[in-house]
Amino acid sequence: MSGVRRNERAHGSTAEAPREAESASFDSDLDRHARELRHARRVTFDEPMRLMRGGSLPSVTVVYETYGKLNARRDNGVLICHAISGDSHVARHDANDDPGWWDLFVGPGKPVDTDRYFVVCPNILGGCRGSTGPNSVNPRTGRPYAADFPVITVEDIVDVQRKLVTHLGIDRLRAVIGGSLGGHMTLTWATRYPERLDGAVALATSAHLSSQSLAFDVVGRNAILCDPEYQGGQYYGNGAGPRVGLAIARMLGHITYLSPEVMTEKFAEERSEPREIRSRFETTFCVGSYLAHQGDKFGERFDANSYLTLSMAMDLFDLGSTPGKLAAALRASRCRWLVISYSSDWLFPPAQSREIVDALVAENKPVSYCNVESRNGHDAFLLPNDLGTYGELTRAFLANLGADARGAADPNSDQESPQAARHSPTSIFHARHRLDYERIAQLIPPAAAVLDLGCGSGGLLCRLADRQQGRLAGLELDERAVVSCVQRGLDVVQHDLNQGLAPFADRQFDFVVLSQTLQTVLDVERVIDEMLRVGKRCIVSFPNLGYEPHRVQLAEYGLAPRVDAARAFEWYNTPNVRFLTIADFEEFCRNKGLRIHERIALDTVAGQPVEHDPNRNANVAIIVLSQ
Amino acid sequence: MSGVRRNERAHGSTAEAPREAESASFDSDLDRHARELRHARRVTFDEPMRLMRGGSLPSVTVVYETYGKLNARRDNGVLICHAISGDSHVARHDANDDPGWWDLFVGPGKPVDTDRYFVVCPNILGGCRGSTGPNSVNPRTGRPYAADFPVITVEDIVDVQRKLVTHLGIDRLRAVIGGSLGGHMTLTWATRYPERLDGAVALATSAHLSSQSLAFDVVGRNAILCDPEYQGGQYYGNGAGPRVGLAIARMLGHITYLSPEVMTEKFAEERSEPREIRSRFETTFCVGSYLAHQGDKFGERFDANSYLTLSMAMDLFDLGSTPGKLAAALRASRCRWLVISYSSDWLFPPAQSREIVDALVAENKPVSYCNVESRNGHDAFLLPNDLGTYGELTRAFLANLGADARGAADPNSDQESPQAARHSPTSIFHARHRLDYERIAQLIPPAAAVLDLGCGSGGLLCRLADRQQGRLAGLELDERAVVSCVQRGLDVVQHDLNQGLAPFADRQFDFVVLSQTLQTVLDVERVIDEMLRVGKRCIVSFPNLGYEPHRVQLAEYGLAPRVDAARAFEWYNTPNVRFLTIADFEEFCRNKGLRIHERIALDTVAGQPVEHDPNRNANVAIIVLSQ
Repeated sequence: MSGVRRNERAHGSTAEAPREAESASFDSDLDRHARELRHARRVTFDEPMRLMRGGSLPSVTVVYETYGKLNARRDNGVLICHAISGDSHVARHDANDDPGWWDLFVGPGKPVDTDRYFVVCPNILGGCRGSTGPNSVNPRTGRPYAADFPVITVEDIVDVQRKLVTHLGIDRLRAVIGGSLGGHMTLTWATRYPERLDGAVALATSAHLSSQSLAFDVVGRNAILCDPEYQGGQYYGNGAGPRVGLAIARMLGHITYLSPEVMTEKFAEERSEPREIRSRFETTFCVGSYLAHQGDKFGERFDANSYLTLSMAMDLFDLGSTPGKLAAALRASRCRWLVISYSSDWLFPPAQSREIVDALVAENKPVSYCNVESRNGHDAFLLPNDLGTYGELTRAFLANLGADARGAADPNSDQESPQAARHSPTSIFHARHRLDYERIAQLIPPAAAVLDLGCGSGGLLCRLADRQQGRLAGLELDERAVVSCVQRGLDVVQHDLNQGLAPFADRQFDFVVLSQTLQTVLDVERVIDEMLRVGKRCIVSFPNLGYEPHRVQLAEYGLAPRVDAARAFEWYNTPNVRFLTIADFEEFCRNKGLRIHERIALDTVAGQPVEHDPNRNANVAIIVLSQ
Repeated sequence: MSGVRRNERAHGSTAEAPREAESASFDSDLDRHARELRHARRVTFDEPMRLMRGGSLPSVTVVYETYGKLNARRDNGVLICHAISGDSHVARHDANDDPGWWDLFVGPGKPVDTDRYFVVCPNILGGCRGSTGPNSVNPRTGRPYAADFPVITVEDIVDVQRKLVTHLGIDRLRAVIGGSLGGHMTLTWATRYPERLDGAVALATSAHLSSQSLAFDVVGRNAILCDPEYQGGQYYGNGAGPRVGLAIARMLGHITYLSPEVMTEKFAEERSEPREIRSRFETTFCVGSYLAHQGDKFGERFDANSYLTLSMAMDLFDLGSTPGKLAAALRASRCRWLVISYSSDWLFPPAQSREIVDALVAENKPVSYCNVESRNGHDAFLLPNDLGTYGELTRAFLANLGADARGAADPNSDQESPQAARHSPTSIFHARHRLDYERIAQLIPPAAAVLDLGCGSGGLLCRLADRQQGRLAGLELDERAVVSCVQRGLDVVQHDLNQGLAPFADRQFDFVVLSQTLQTVLDVERVIDEMLRVGKRCIVSFPNLGYEPHRVQLAEYGLAPRVDAARAFEWYNTPNVRFLTIADFEEFCRNKGLRIHERIALDTVAGQPVEHDPNRNANVAIIVLSQ
């Protein structure tokens, strides 16, 4: 604890005198804002800090807020990492408090439940809401760092967060959670300090900015740097600073945070009827008055040097530019992962989250992924619209971390059985009793690693998990089914099987299962080829068009057979798009030179296996095959 | 011709003395550029021009270039409308000439074939490449207009183009062609001067900018207007002008012209290895050096006041903000339409082209539409990558305009038969002899208006067109098939039937046909409901699963029937996803309370109609039904 000075307003046990000189030495709106953070605490680490890009800082102050209580085992800590313009005030502390920037996500009974978790949210290094940043006084000169503030990276930001977490007496966090730039911090925690967290929740983020997103940052920085009021960064106490440039950058930001659909919704109808505001900027159009307002407002609350510093930190972040490099970087991680993207986010597009997920998958890391169907663009992770999905995913993911998850790796420390911690699915996707699941489970030896393609709400995987299986993973297209899987503590990646299994390595799993899904897949050959590549053995189950009642339906009644077990669908609305008999599938295997190891035929109507003439007497077939 | 002064360098027949004072009165790079347009001609209309937004101009000068020869009938004129930063030099005039901005599209043997057409490309009003714009001298003051240049609209730009076209002795243009802002001009020509053109080709454009695209323009203008060097617009002869602001605007433009995929391709690999350039702007990243270069370069060749003027004209353009208003605006048009969008264009997204197409469709206007599958973003319409599609579409569309097309509306003036002008399809999509086409054609009385859903390369529509049918239109998903249809002179809209038929009005067509497509549609019920809404009568043909050989295949051999006529597909790769018998379809109709007017059953193997037990003996059914 040497070299640490604290201002612990609430805990107070080891509090020293406040050290507020840093940001009080010049009069600015920013400092006023910082002081309004009534529940914020401050700690100063009075030792020099070397930075990744070569510079150093003589000391570092962190302003942070906490919520909930650290438990006796000190293992319920959750770190929230804010995005570029955020601060420590992630949520209200009480009903009278100012709103936090993520109130809907963090609080009592919220997805990050402060009744269960001890939540820590620091203002990040380089920021302007109390923690050390360009507007802080450089102790070496007695004046604000301004443009002399060194280049910092996301690693530096995380290193400061780690000092804070250690200072708070937390050896291992239950989870690190962050969106956007905060997601970069989450990725960095998991790879740089893998022993310090059980779970990583990365929302609306990427392993590096896309070229397009980087380009917007460059334009924003150019606008600030070329604003004559920037004065080489030495504008403190010397005019209002580069308000125009900062506003231009912020306007761009706001365009990129919204989806085009939402922009149309907000502004198209009143296209030429701007809100009445006073601004130096153009207000001819409705969207223009919105941008003018956002640009003006940002200049009042945010420091341009901080913006430059943090946007550059974000742009320099690059966990790995190729799948191989990214996988190598993620190899170090030891936590479980929850990665969430939003379908209409074009600043951090879903494909970039998929890159992270694919690399984790390739490294056999436990990961769940959902691309939330959303119309709210990058902002979606801060908005209520899609909270039912991303909030519930986060809540369920957190509930399955910690003691129980560690127990899976270390059975001796396991206090409860893993399935007790697994939440029951609440969705309608809970699978009915499935005779074929029982038979498939019997085909898979204990300890085998299993990938279930089209795993639904996880019926088969749960059955396998009950037996202390090896690594289990599922792929599923339906968003609600993905939520159900995560609620049950399973690792599931949202994925369309028609896109193949590219992220998986050859023979990565002992078994790959495709149960009752083949008939819904358009590109059958590709899916079969891919599962044979990824699995040492493959298990395929499908409804058999050759079942006698189906033959009778067509031959005698002249009607299309209804092959779905529940006969719930008609020819014109069935999810099935492929119709095959056992004989068709065996011919397909023969033509492709595949080895069939086992054939199981079931009559699920009679509830029994079929021995005689399965292509006529079975309505479901289970085939075990390999290349 | 009163009030017109010309400088006809080549034609020269009625040439007067050049009047170059306007743009030579101040020394600027822009003027130097304008003078480098060696083949450009100039004409001045010396009468006051009233503008849409209330201002006026005492006279208007137009700099333009022409290619090819106006024929004796003066009916082969094609007007090219350039985009915001373009000029009159659309193409080379000879091998020694500077490259034009659309060389790949305009020239001898090119899609806009200057051996066939007399091509005219004027620099637009408000531009800075010779035509009257903010950098022209205001005759009233003897000084450049600068910020006093009035607000102009796309209508004003088109009015000036019309003066030029009239001046050139062209009463009716074969076509007006433009992309982006040039597309706005095309739309304006077709609706404002419908009697002046046979065809309109609108590429990568919209009826109005999206809120997102408008927002980028606003930010760009703010950057220029807030640049201290802008000096209220009076910067001519007074410094370099708002080079920073203009560069910021241009950088934004370049981001929006490229697709995110192309940006990644160009810049991701060398992310932190910028090109070595000298610039005042940030060059830390590769994409930054590109933007810096583009920003710097643009300031050397383009006038900021022109940029402000033209971007505002673009933003003010609004042909109709709702489907109803847009349809009302397009109601006036009398031309045939070709609308082309590019799948990865996010500045003028395909959905906006669809709005235009849907409004035209609702108004029964002859329109073809293709959303070119492209990775090149908005720039695609200027690039060679997708020329095979958009170039061929334009070439074929132009070839089917003019004398022939007018002949279709006025049979007495028809010199050749319409089908002679219809190009033969070169693609593999030319339909095989189809017995069902013959029977369907027999069911449709002459003069009936017909919509063919899933029209392929137009086999049925061509057959109907040969009979002097009423309005014919096709919908087709496949891009190559769409090209084939346009080559055959048909009106075809690229469309996925699963999205319904929303743009069409109730009972808009006498007949809606769905031939051999039902079985490939996932949402059968929606498609049937929609076609029954749009057509007074509907004709559905489909392969019959109840055909005896199919029954035998399943009942006796235990194999899935192969219902496609050519038996070219297996169960695992057939395009068919719905399998039904005639009995299934009739039950479906009964349950929905639909009226079946006629049933035709065919055995296309035997090549004959089926009378007895069609559900067993026919492999193809044709059903005529209505609500």
